[in-house]
Amino acid sequence: MASQEIEDLAAALARLPGLGPRSARRAVLYLLKKRESAFTPLVEAMERVRANLATCDICGNVDTQNPCGICTDPRRDPRSLCVVEEVSDLWALDRSRLFVGRYHVLGGRLSALDGIGPEDLGVASLIARVAEGGIDEVVLAMNATLEGQTTAHYLAERLEGYPVRLTQLAQGLPMGGELDYLDEGTLAQALRARKPVV
Amino acid sequence: MASQEIEDLAAALARLPGLGPRSARRAVLYLLKKRESAFTPLVEAMERVRANLATCDICGNVDTQNPCGICTDPRRDPRSLCVVEEVSDLWALDRSRLFVGRYHVLGGRLSALDGIGPEDLGVASLIARVAEGGIDEVVLAMNATLEGQTTAHYLAERLEGYPVRLTQLAQGLPMGGELDYLDEGTLAQALRARKPVV
Ligand SMILES: [Zn+2]
Ligand SMILES: [Zn+2]
Repeated sequence: MASQEIEDLAAALARLPGLGPRSARRAVLYLLKKRESAFTPLVEAMERVRANLATCDICGNVDTQNPCGICTDPRRDPRSLCVVEEVSDLWALDRSRLFVGRYHVLGGRLSALDGIGPEDLGVASLIARVAEGGIDEVVLAMNATLEGQTTAHYLAERLEGYPVRLTQLAQGLPMGGELDYLDEGTLAQALRARKPVV
Repeated sequence: MASQEIEDLAAALARLPGLGPRSARRAVLYLLKKRESAFTPLVEAMERVRANLATCDICGNVDTQNPCGICTDPRRDPRSLCVVEEVSDLWALDRSRLFVGRYHVLGGRLSALDGIGPEDLGVASLIARVAEGGIDEVVLAMNATLEGQTTAHYLAERLEGYPVRLTQLAQGLPMGGELDYLDEGTLAQALRARKPVV
């Protein structure tokens, strides 16, 4: 259809999550048509991010500065630390705007199956941050999966003896969740963790 | 959540057709994680296309060369000319691989409502190409919309008297169907069964 360069661009876009070959072609056409208003701004935005891309030495977040914007934000409460598996979890939690502390990204979860042990994750750096003091609460915000919960239990053991309050995310029905549509695991957990009506 | 640069990138991606804010964020995270294997190739592919982007002086196709790859392809039959409304239609038709001639992009369709007349479209350049000779067949591949068919009728009148066979895409295009949205099989069938304009 088009030149190899355009085909290559469509192929590169098609590899993005959420874009298939068809929508990638539509995106390319959109960019070609809107060269000044869409193509140039997108390329420039990409260049700016790619040029400054860095992993935060403190928390493992990915940002265009190191230390990252969260670690250097003075309005953030340094006494509260939220441990997550992945950068995507950090972003998702932070969009809720409910947590105003800082984060620690493990970079994965313990997995016997995939041969991932504590030394493959940011565990030592987490212990070091807690050992340094100044942290009151550590929120273990692992995924509600078997491996996530195994990781949370492991971290809870490793953090025993430090003067911090360990908490974890509540499990149960999601907002707006209809019983009929939820999987049995979620329902069982919600039932198991049921609370008295006040 | 992240730096302004990263937010800007997510916003620029979210404007692409087929990507909303949520999938744009997922795409950004994917790029940040796969800096070498995905981010860099995508930026480079974009730069290559943007640097060489041109509208073909002959047919109106958008390509990284001018004249475009189709107009300069010696395996293409110069005696067969397919007239389309938009570049996206050209690409869609060409993916069917059934048409081996060349194209002419009008850049739109006649529309009383939008005040678009023949002088706003590549009509004069089409007449000039036909008048120059060497063309045996002109396929009027307008969309199966009222305005598309009006445009086809108008072009058929303008091309009367020239020694070319006028054809149009077969019925089989669904009413209101736009070429760009149709699957390749439907397009191939419509092209295969094209009929003379009476
Ligand atoms: Zn950080
Ligand atoms: Zn051309």
